[in-house]
Amino acid sequence: MDNSPRKINFGAGPAKLPEEVLVKARDELLNFNSTGISILEMSHRSKDFAEVLEETKSLLRELMKVPDNFEILFMQGGGTGQFAAIPLNLKGDKEFADYIVTGAWSNKAAAEASKFIRVKKVFNPTKPFVTIPDQSKWDHDKEAAYLYYCANETVHGIEFHTPPFSVHGVPLVADISSNFLSRPFDFAHHGLVFGGTQKNLGAAGLTVVMVRKDLIGKAQPTTPAILSYQDMVEHNSLYNTPAVYGIYLTNLVLKWIRDQGGVDAIYAINKKKAETIYNLIDNSNGFYTCAVDKQCRSYMNVCYRIKGGDETLEAEFLKGAQARGMISLKGHRSVGGIRASLYNAVTLQETEQLANWMREFMKNQAA
Amino acid sequence: MDNSPRKINFGAGPAKLPEEVLVKARDELLNFNSTGISILEMSHRSKDFAEVLEETKSLLRELMKVPDNFEILFMQGGGTGQFAAIPLNLKGDKEFADYIVTGAWSNKAAAEASKFIRVKKVFNPTKPFVTIPDQSKWDHDKEAAYLYYCANETVHGIEFHTPPFSVHGVPLVADISSNFLSRPFDFAHHGLVFGGTQKNLGAAGLTVVMVRKDLIGKAQPTTPAILSYQDMVEHNSLYNTPAVYGIYLTNLVLKWIRDQGGVDAIYAINKKKAETIYNLIDNSNGFYTCAVDKQCRSYMNVCYRIKGGDETLEAEFLKGAQARGMISLKGHRSVGGIRASLYNAVTLQETEQLANWMREFMKNQAA
Repeated sequence: MDNSPRKINFGAGPAKLPEEVLVKARDELLNFNSTGISILEMSHRSKDFAEVLEETKSLLRELMKVPDNFEILFMQGGGTGQFAAIPLNLKGDKEFADYIVTGAWSNKAAAEASKFIRVKKVFNPTKPFVTIPDQSKWDHDKEAAYLYYCANETVHGIEFHTPPFSVHGVPLVADISSNFLSRPFDFAHHGLVFGGTQKNLGAAGLTVVMVRKDLIGKAQPTTPAILSYQDMVEHNSLYNTPAVYGIYLTNLVLKWIRDQGGVDAIYAINKKKAETIYNLIDNSNGFYTCAVDKQCRSYMNVCYRIKGGDETLEAEFLKGAQARGMISLKGHRSVGGIRASLYNAVTLQETEQLANWMREFMKNQAA
Repeated sequence: MDNSPRKINFGAGPAKLPEEVLVKARDELLNFNSTGISILEMSHRSKDFAEVLEETKSLLRELMKVPDNFEILFMQGGGTGQFAAIPLNLKGDKEFADYIVTGAWSNKAAAEASKFIRVKKVFNPTKPFVTIPDQSKWDHDKEAAYLYYCANETVHGIEFHTPPFSVHGVPLVADISSNFLSRPFDFAHHGLVFGGTQKNLGAAGLTVVMVRKDLIGKAQPTTPAILSYQDMVEHNSLYNTPAVYGIYLTNLVLKWIRDQGGVDAIYAINKKKAETIYNLIDNSNGFYTCAVDKQCRSYMNVCYRIKGGDETLEAEFLKGAQARGMISLKGHRSVGGIRASLYNAVTLQETEQLANWMREFMKNQAA
């Protein structure tokens, strides 16, 4: 086995996993739970896997306080799959859906949905994405099939610190891919909450969908089975072979979250991590700048520029970070600059290492 | 780490993986290729993963002799996803597609496709599925969008030992999920060849699609992006986050196949394995029976009954097998009896262990 040291991974996703999870996954890779086979080789219809599946659902329900009137589904195709599944399953006989576009991902969601339903944006998104306009100014409608938002925009670093409220009766649909279980979640007003697991909850290839029971059963007849909530509910997510290993890894991550003290404890650390970097940025006299409005700065993806966007300096910063074992800090190509993704598995100590390097780098430039 | 012995896994899928692959996956789980992070944590847009992806495509192209005019795509959603993707992508302005229904999976494919295109079956499938009617008697049509077949029916143990031929110009579509790289494959006449990787090629959650370039670009406007061949081609299978770990595992399995001497070598062993069991069945004086016609008996999934379907005896046989470390031999619930899945990773020696137990069990019953 390669014994070279592990790096600190600030990547935006697929992202860092807790080391305890990786060690456990490694140690039982050839023999899961004394079954004599790998979880990778296990039938999705076996008793052993059924236990993993049920336990994963229970853990999620408990940790996230998922209400009883929500089904928990394990699907494939990531957020992009859900961008189509949502209108296909929820349109019913409505004519349009309302979309809150606050960054790259909600924008993509709206574009994909427009294949299946008329998309109405509740405000005209202005680029660059740096804010969430006040809800009192939105043009949202009680005749909409649903009101869609992305709880955390990974590319632009914009997060809803309180969810939008819905106009009476219109179910909220939330993409929580990049802040899944990073903070307490209030299901009130929501009809559907989904997220890929590759940032805070496991590996790429698994999508968790939590959907209110009364919304199931009115899918368009042209809904592919793999995107049909009803088919998945009726077969307990085993309509077809699910991402077995993905569910297993998410199971391990959920246990890790529980062992950290649950979502409240995780959130307290996440807040501290984010504040460490944002405070440093705000106290840097403009050396570091974050373009995002303070009230919606993401706790998960801290996006910033150096000296107003000096690419040479930014490249130097990244190189120095790499030399110090900190990787994947480069901002998304559409935004540039630096992006530090501080998902659950990134520790406070690792965040402080980043802060130290930011301080050192700034000092070197001043010298 | 648990050191209890590994079982011999005759399961139909997710299925046995070569032990060398599992050992390699375990040993580098915390640190892939000296990157300092796990492949599970790696961005799908990183240089390191780009190399894995390209190598996986090259290996597949080389080992399977995939023609240059075929694209190789890595998708999600398994066979069931493709059952919808195929008509959505290939219908164009055709009115119907021809389906060859020879078992549970082609039957499911036809049912799912009928959401998107008129499905015409080239013969009336008669149950139980035990044969493939002679092609001279099929009602297939040169106006069909495509001619669909399942190369190996996992549930019923029926395999095409030579592919069907297509009526002039109609592309063949083959589901090779359960005999992927178990034998040489002739791409002639084919327009699309696909398979989930969870039987012969890796883990659940990854689907390999090989599609002829001239068939891409006429998808219905309501094709979800995750099922669109054009979107996947344009983004080199990275339109959305792919099943990173699945692609990595398939990469390892392909290298293992290469190290075994390639597909011809694998096929020679597979033939010997299947003959070992079928010969024993045919020479058992009716103690073991296989209902499938000899010319289309699957080399991958050998389905048989004991004493014409004596469920007590069959349960006893399975129990004895389990005691001898051989698991997952129970037939599919819709067929009953025994099913021995002899995928690439099952060795000749392991197959002989099964044959030994079959002989012993038969002798015990005669005593």
